[in-house]
Amino acid sequence: MIRTSIVGASGYTGGELLRLLLCHPKVEVIQATSRSHLGEYVYQTHPNLRKRSALKFSDPESLEPVDVLFLALPHGQAQSQINTYEKIAPKIIDLSADFRLRTPQDYHFWYGKNHAAPEWLERFVYGLPELHREEIQTASYVSGVGCNATACNLALLPLANANLIDSTLPLLIEVKTGSSESGADGNPGSHHPERANVVRTFSPLGHRHTAEVIQEIGILNISLTITAVELVRGVLATAHAWVKPGVTNQDLWKAYRKTAIDNPFIRIVKEKRGIYRVPEPKILAGSNYVDLGFELDEENRHVVGICAIDNLMKGASGSAVQCMNLMFNLDETTGLEFPGLHPI
Amino acid sequence: MIRTSIVGASGYTGGELLRLLLCHPKVEVIQATSRSHLGEYVYQTHPNLRKRSALKFSDPESLEPVDVLFLALPHGQAQSQINTYEKIAPKIIDLSADFRLRTPQDYHFWYGKNHAAPEWLERFVYGLPELHREEIQTASYVSGVGCNATACNLALLPLANANLIDSTLPLLIEVKTGSSESGADGNPGSHHPERANVVRTFSPLGHRHTAEVIQEIGILNISLTITAVELVRGVLATAHAWVKPGVTNQDLWKAYRKTAIDNPFIRIVKEKRGIYRVPEPKILAGSNYVDLGFELDEENRHVVGICAIDNLMKGASGSAVQCMNLMFNLDETTGLEFPGLHPI
Amino acid sequence: MIRTSIVGASGYTGGELLRLLLCHPKVEVIQATSRSHLGEYVYQTHPNLRKRSALKFSDPESLEPVDVLFLALPHGQAQSQINTYEKIAPKIIDLSADFRLRTPQDYHFWYGKNHAAPEWLERFVYGLPELHREEIQTASYVSGVGCNATACNLALLPLANANLIDSTLPLLIEVKTGSSESGADGNPGSHHPERANVVRTFSPLGHRHTAEVIQEIGILNISLTITAVELVRGVLATAHAWVKPGVTNQDLWKAYRKTAIDNPFIRIVKEKRGIYRVPEPKILAGSNYVDLGFELDEENRHVVGICAIDNLMKGASGSAVQCMNLMFNLDETTGLEFPGLHPI
Amino acid sequence: MIRTSIVGASGYTGGELLRLLLCHPKVEVIQATSRSHLGEYVYQTHPNLRKRSALKFSDPESLEPVDVLFLALPHGQAQSQINTYEKIAPKIIDLSADFRLRTPQDYHFWYGKNHAAPEWLERFVYGLPELHREEIQTASYVSGVGCNATACNLALLPLANANLIDSTLPLLIEVKTGSSESGADGNPGSHHPERANVVRTFSPLGHRHTAEVIQEIGILNISLTITAVELVRGVLATAHAWVKPGVTNQDLWKAYRKTAIDNPFIRIVKEKRGIYRVPEPKILAGSNYVDLGFELDEENRHVVGICAIDNLMKGASGSAVQCMNLMFNLDETTGLEFPGLHPI
Repeated sequence: MIRTSIVGASGYTGGELLRLLLCHPKVEVIQATSRSHLGEYVYQTHPNLRKRSALKFSDPESLEPVDVLFLALPHGQAQSQINTYEKIAPKIIDLSADFRLRTPQDYHFWYGKNHAAPEWLERFVYGLPELHREEIQTASYVSGVGCNATACNLALLPLANANLIDSTLPLLIEVKTGSSESGADGNPGSHHPERANVVRTFSPLGHRHTAEVIQEIGILNISLTITAVELVRGVLATAHAWVKPGVTNQDLWKAYRKTAIDNPFIRIVKEKRGIYRVPEPKILAGSNYVDLGFELDEENRHVVGICAIDNLMKGASGSAVQCMNLMFNLDETTGLEFPGLHPI
Repeated sequence: MIRTSIVGASGYTGGELLRLLLCHPKVEVIQATSRSHLGEYVYQTHPNLRKRSALKFSDPESLEPVDVLFLALPHGQAQSQINTYEKIAPKIIDLSADFRLRTPQDYHFWYGKNHAAPEWLERFVYGLPELHREEIQTASYVSGVGCNATACNLALLPLANANLIDSTLPLLIEVKTGSSESGADGNPGSHHPERANVVRTFSPLGHRHTAEVIQEIGILNISLTITAVELVRGVLATAHAWVKPGVTNQDLWKAYRKTAIDNPFIRIVKEKRGIYRVPEPKILAGSNYVDLGFELDEENRHVVGICAIDNLMKGASGSAVQCMNLMFNLDETTGLEFPGLHPI
Repeated sequence: MIRTSIVGASGYTGGELLRLLLCHPKVEVIQATSRSHLGEYVYQTHPNLRKRSALKFSDPESLEPVDVLFLALPHGQAQSQINTYEKIAPKIIDLSADFRLRTPQDYHFWYGKNHAAPEWLERFVYGLPELHREEIQTASYVSGVGCNATACNLALLPLANANLIDSTLPLLIEVKTGSSESGADGNPGSHHPERANVVRTFSPLGHRHTAEVIQEIGILNISLTITAVELVRGVLATAHAWVKPGVTNQDLWKAYRKTAIDNPFIRIVKEKRGIYRVPEPKILAGSNYVDLGFELDEENRHVVGICAIDNLMKGASGSAVQCMNLMFNLDETTGLEFPGLHPI
Repeated sequence: MIRTSIVGASGYTGGELLRLLLCHPKVEVIQATSRSHLGEYVYQTHPNLRKRSALKFSDPESLEPVDVLFLALPHGQAQSQINTYEKIAPKIIDLSADFRLRTPQDYHFWYGKNHAAPEWLERFVYGLPELHREEIQTASYVSGVGCNATACNLALLPLANANLIDSTLPLLIEVKTGSSESGADGNPGSHHPERANVVRTFSPLGHRHTAEVIQEIGILNISLTITAVELVRGVLATAHAWVKPGVTNQDLWKAYRKTAIDNPFIRIVKEKRGIYRVPEPKILAGSNYVDLGFELDEENRHVVGICAIDNLMKGASGSAVQCMNLMFNLDETTGLEFPGLHPI
């Protein structure tokens, strides 16, 4: 059994990790920390875990040694404590934004301050198996992924892998997100009467996750537009790109099929009939699947790539567990088999 | 023109009052106060008022004399300042819970503390025109109404007026409410990911609004059970009562029809066909209507009385404006003509 | 491996069964039938099953012999074909309303017509393990359960088991339900613009599931009031009963604790702090748990019993799989381990 | 008083027209037709009109002469009957798609069939006052507007009027829509359990409303991507355009301010603080306002223009009434004063 602990387990990504690891057949959860809920049962915060775990939130200052440590802290905290956590476990998976970018310059540009542990940036691998499977298998330190960035990166993955994008034209991605994306702490805009039924483009340009897409896809002229919609879990990314001259619909099918074959969690959704003809995040709640679709206007070379994920699963904790599976030579899908619900 | 000001205009009932009074053909709004938003345009808080009013929130300490003063403060504040407000206007309509109950004993029992201005309790009239129309017409001081209490009182009104209830048996009322009922200030349970799609019986027994129903209906053995559901505006009360022996379905029709004839905002909804066969709060958003329905099990004498309202309108600000109309000899419906939307 | 087939697998309960059985470690799904979707992949109707099953809907007329046959047909069909299905499998679990009531008289009273196979009624066991665990273990024929009835029966279970209810007083149950309860076929009232955000008491009195509660709890004076709310999956039942003189809060705790100990899926939710202090259906989506709470007004002997379930799981397909586990001597919880999601 | 009738008043745009015209101070509604609801009270279909109108749906075959006739029929019907309707009223406002495009060629290209009355296309003025105010004032025949097209056209209006767009680059518009957009008739995908909480890009490319945007804005390389979200009323268009070299943020402010000054229903929403910093459709339910916002990336010349409207008001019936006001020399805003609700 893999012995593991979660630092920062009272938030949404921490809670989702806890659910996944408590149900994982090869894992034993040693500790789940929370300063604000110290000493309380984990099920008082995460009510789905009632009758499933007698664990209480413990103090992050008294961590026992484990095989792998998951960090699910607010952004900025892991980087300042990384030398401490290094002593707790030989492997660390950090879900925050702290170790996603590869250079201190990029970090400073997008986060507006100096990184507290810049020498650690190159030790981390970006934790999206669909992009870095082999590196993750041998890595000791793996970063988390931004949920919006993940939807964007995976929307573009088949096109990028097959080298079909004309990168001289701007690449625009429209992202629609649920309310769980901004975490467990409320703010005036998340008060239910104000947040219910919104279509709120809170970030028309300049969202920080843009950095992860530019870094991972390797194209500079990319912009993200983020709109909050009525939904708790889920992200849909609609990527508008221009394909190279001569690229056909058949080329796209080939590229998407290859991606789906190479990756156990990627599915193509492009049906001519029925209700579910395109990727939709709502049916992915709790699942680690990535549903991809596309539409090509051959004449104008305009391709619309669509990607739906659960932001707390594939966009955060699901990918982190998938990385752990790879790091410990388990089947990539272990403990991530829940297929999602219909209807929901 | 009636000159008026609103004290505490940045909350939900204050904002709704502001909308109604700014659009009212016989009213001029002099001031709208808010400590927390002092100096800001009212439309920055209430975005529906953009391009409709250049009013800025003013200081509650510098109120000008007006014809009628509306108080929309958090519970407990009006009672401690009532002697100050008395000097601002000859007529006061207070929307808080401070002056709804008629005795200091009742106030202490339900609110757990002594009333700060007990001598004022008997000067106020309970501000529900359907119960106290004549008194309100000559009153100087009118209280607000609890939104849940209003739905309950109106669900029972036709039965109580016609004296059909067997008060020896317990009377149970199940209330379902939207999220705006708890006001503009957020709390952990109103954070969207936690509040969305709830069916949360947060008050199984003992809700304070019970006091207003017992007082106004005059039956002691009444209990309220309150369940929060996914909805922003709206309350549905389902009252379970037992009718006196021999009461028939026809007696009920007669009682309900009389109530609808006597009250311009009361409608009976009891259709055999179509989608909208029973009262539903969602179509009442923004409207002052009260939709009433009923079902009688003659054999068991069990009657289910149903009442739908918009909690911010008929359950708060709409009733307050209706009271103002009565106090100034205007047609009761002036400024309250919006019929609601379909679909919504 | 238990060989099984589902007759009527394109509806919501059929689809949920299919998901559960495809993921069940001891089951092999042989056929899933659908007349309307014959020959199509099951994932075209149930998009969560994409990449999980290559099964196609087959013809209900050509069923192979199996160990246990699940029937998930529209009400009325199983009873007219039961002699055919009997030849396909030695064990049958029928999820429709056809075999839930124990007498032809009751069936006629509540369903308004004669039962087509009255002699079969006594061969079936009512399929709620919490009520009939031992009988189910040895049964060949097990009925489904009404989703509303299940929420009501389980809300009353601890009180009934401990014999605490004063059955001389009327027992009222208010049920709030999501939209999936009425099945996969649309109707004018389920069109999204009309159904969204409703609080619609479509059945104030006389709902057919009342029959199952009267039969199983054994009290005659029970009424159900059903209100549709904004939610896809989930039922909340709020039962209003009167306890016998002298019954205390402690008696209730004892009764509830015993029920939770005796039944692996029953949990008590009665917290003084936090967001999730009472049972709530939304966190149960996909889970087979039953969350129970209560509140007692000792003075008036009024108890409010609260029960939350997922109508498609504990209220239909989850209970059916739980029955199957019992019938085949498996651990009752096999294949039903999904704990639900937070947030959702 | 302007005498008017509505042909096809049982649908959503017809119902919204009926509400607006019944409340309009200068209008008398003579007839409201519906074949499917013939003889029923209009409030049985549109429950918000209960106690507001005793009108019954009448037969479209027996129309009385009126001053202006509103046609709210399914697409395709008005064009085949226009010669009949011409005899009923000297002025016609048609809300369908039949007379929005100016040439039979365009109609054939986008709707896939020949127009039944091509000679009428040039007699109609496109019914968006913000684009054709003067023509509408003197027009006898005015078309409706597509709701998505209206959001797109208005998102681009300030930029187009000020001639700021670099039309050599592709112009992409992402539209998010509520469920009322597709009308009162249900379909499998509008069944609540399937439609609730969707983020469904049902039209990635090629939506028919694209034709109205190309025609009205006069730029050829425009694409629309339409995504259905959880919302009943409302559309948000996010237009991605490229401005000409040298265009600054200040140029945009100037262009937007001029548009807001010239048009009574247009508002600029671009705040640095508060919850409502960008245009949002939810607060526009029932209102005829158009909320516009923008964000400019000067370096990349990328502008994001945002427009929120109520699809049934500004995107259909509200604009139609606004056109009627102009055609009859009334103040443009008469009967359209409802400011919308907050919260909602």
